[in-house]
Amino acid sequence: MGGGPTHETLLFIFQEPEPTPLTNKLRAQFPHITLIYHQLSRPTPGKLMGGIPYAFDKIPDDLWSRTTILVTLGTLPPDPKLAPNLKLIHLLSAGVDHFTKHPIFTDTDIPITTVSGIHGPAISEWVLMTALNLAKNYNVMHDNQKAHRWDSKSTGLMRRSDWQGKTVGIAGYGSIGRQVARVFNAMGSNVHAYTSSARSTAESRRDTGYVIPGTGDPEGKLPSAWYSGTDKTGLHTFLGSGLDVLVVCVPLTDSTRGLLGREEMDVLFRASLEKAKGRDVGGSGVEEGKLPDGEGCILVNIARGAVIQTDALIAALKEGKLQGAALDVTDPEPLPEDSELWDLPNAIVTPHVSGLFSGYLERGLDVLVENLRRRERGEKLVNEINRKKGYRSAET
Amino acid sequence: MGGGPTHETLLFIFQEPEPTPLTNKLRAQFPHITLIYHQLSRPTPGKLMGGIPYAFDKIPDDLWSRTTILVTLGTLPPDPKLAPNLKLIHLLSAGVDHFTKHPIFTDTDIPITTVSGIHGPAISEWVLMTALNLAKNYNVMHDNQKAHRWDSKSTGLMRRSDWQGKTVGIAGYGSIGRQVARVFNAMGSNVHAYTSSARSTAESRRDTGYVIPGTGDPEGKLPSAWYSGTDKTGLHTFLGSGLDVLVVCVPLTDSTRGLLGREEMDVLFRASLEKAKGRDVGGSGVEEGKLPDGEGCILVNIARGAVIQTDALIAALKEGKLQGAALDVTDPEPLPEDSELWDLPNAIVTPHVSGLFSGYLERGLDVLVENLRRRERGEKLVNEINRKKGYRSAET
Repeated sequence: MGGGPTHETLLFIFQEPEPTPLTNKLRAQFPHITLIYHQLSRPTPGKLMGGIPYAFDKIPDDLWSRTTILVTLGTLPPDPKLAPNLKLIHLLSAGVDHFTKHPIFTDTDIPITTVSGIHGPAISEWVLMTALNLAKNYNVMHDNQKAHRWDSKSTGLMRRSDWQGKTVGIAGYGSIGRQVARVFNAMGSNVHAYTSSARSTAESRRDTGYVIPGTGDPEGKLPSAWYSGTDKTGLHTFLGSGLDVLVVCVPLTDSTRGLLGREEMDVLFRASLEKAKGRDVGGSGVEEGKLPDGEGCILVNIARGAVIQTDALIAALKEGKLQGAALDVTDPEPLPEDSELWDLPNAIVTPHVSGLFSGYLERGLDVLVENLRRRERGEKLVNEINRKKGYRSAET
Repeated sequence: MGGGPTHETLLFIFQEPEPTPLTNKLRAQFPHITLIYHQLSRPTPGKLMGGIPYAFDKIPDDLWSRTTILVTLGTLPPDPKLAPNLKLIHLLSAGVDHFTKHPIFTDTDIPITTVSGIHGPAISEWVLMTALNLAKNYNVMHDNQKAHRWDSKSTGLMRRSDWQGKTVGIAGYGSIGRQVARVFNAMGSNVHAYTSSARSTAESRRDTGYVIPGTGDPEGKLPSAWYSGTDKTGLHTFLGSGLDVLVVCVPLTDSTRGLLGREEMDVLFRASLEKAKGRDVGGSGVEEGKLPDGEGCILVNIARGAVIQTDALIAALKEGKLQGAALDVTDPEPLPEDSELWDLPNAIVTPHVSGLFSGYLERGLDVLVENLRRRERGEKLVNEINRKKGYRSAET
């Protein structure tokens, strides 16, 4: 410890002018680090590497060679030998799919960290907003407002319950799912989690990624039930557990592609019917296999469109097997102009915007600060890429 | 205690057929109570008493005379002498404004309880839904969907922050305000409370009314700041505390009528400007007194329309002093067809529906059960009307 931490050179590459309130704060927090800001003159097409353009032509060799910490959206040293002192790469993105063929990824073991976890609040708010809009018939209210119509009956709210005691199912219990759980829990709803691997111990239920202080469910204590299993049985047990909302937060992998099809919509539907019977909202067709207004599961997808089979989803929405669907992601994207989804009255479609928010850079640097502190203390880094998996395993 | 509780006769008067799942549950929970259900054949106009019609012509005298507990929306014994054994009246409404001139109210001290507190979840969800819709430009997304347009830029979400670290001001910290606080707190926002009387002790911060288990803020621990005072200074200090949302939950009284006028809108506006400067979202007109897109306070009114001066509100919305307004109540109601409010792009107007939800009766009876248990234990009743005040004092 004598002499304090060794001197470091942090190279911060970004396409905007230097965000001095943020960089000066970093400089003040870490006096032993020399922060060099390099503004890319433009998103350089550069050479293609691993399928996407890397802007590396602007970085002088001597800068690469001095750098010990690299902070960047996607500018990497084209050859790892150029940056022999590099000890940490902090990517200002959540995923690393585009970098897995880069020699830094394949030929070195330099720790690479991401900003996974910083989108939880924005995305959970989008989930909440759209689920509430569907459950409370907001679009009807909006149309009435446009028509200057004061009409409380058309909202149907007298027949729609609040979220107290409802059940929200969360498929994929990572940073986003956990923040969704936190807010629904505050609204009085039960949380059912679903993950591919079983989480039978307290340790396995923890969020191992970066957690914005005061958000999410770091210990995994909010779910009243936790389902798992990559086979149909595990999935269907979860889907059949009486979900009023199902929030899809799983990453798109070979095993999640097309995860939710006709069969799964039917499992959701049957569970909703049972639930409606149990709530004694009879006299409204439940016995004949029809869900009353305001009943049925609301499906929310903020993961990837291809996790859901679009045809099956459209059919379930048209047949009233689901109460509604809120989709920030579609398959394909952009959603074709002639897709039926656009016009379904019980569907909300938005153009992959749930994760957008201002202050992204600031929060992305919070993760870096956390890791610089952890390095000083000799602790395990947060959000470090597992080179074999390519994504943080805690997400599923 | 020997012999158990004495026998009681509970008369349950309602206009619907007997909700047997609920009444039979009550019978099972309280075997010493004989529950008699009386369905009103129609909302009887009957005689006018205290300005509203009472349906009392249907209740036989011998039923009144046996009754010890009365559960009703508004059917009271026309003369207290008809019901000499009456020891508790549970009103299935939250307010008692309409009953304050009835002889049961003026000439007896029979405890009257209400269902105040059961609307918290539904109303807080409406608050959340509309605040999020305004903050995230949902109406723009909805219009894009109608036009089959996949357009992420028009949402402006890249320039809008999530709710992490934002501040929500809650004027009137009763059951509704507390549940609003709970949900915003889960979203990572700070809570500033405002009440007419100071709440400097832990005891004074408690919610003294009925609290649905697992909701609200029973101990009053969520606010990071608590403002009070019925004078302008107290109010303006609260309004100037940097609120990103202001939720109005105060009852309409002589002192809250017109509470928020031009001066108050200006206090909110100046605080928003200061906040935008502090967030360094400069270069966008902040210096010249203009708020950038996505900045400024969102005003939410679920109390009564007349708490806000409508002209001042419209002016503030048009001048960009507020980011937006969500109004479930207006002055007057219904909102006249030619009101400017209907067409303002940053206003959401709904027809006094935020408190509607199914399951109202079930939850209203939960309050009764709580009070029957309290009577058995000899404890103070919850939600008992203070005949002098006419409303529960904890609401403000």
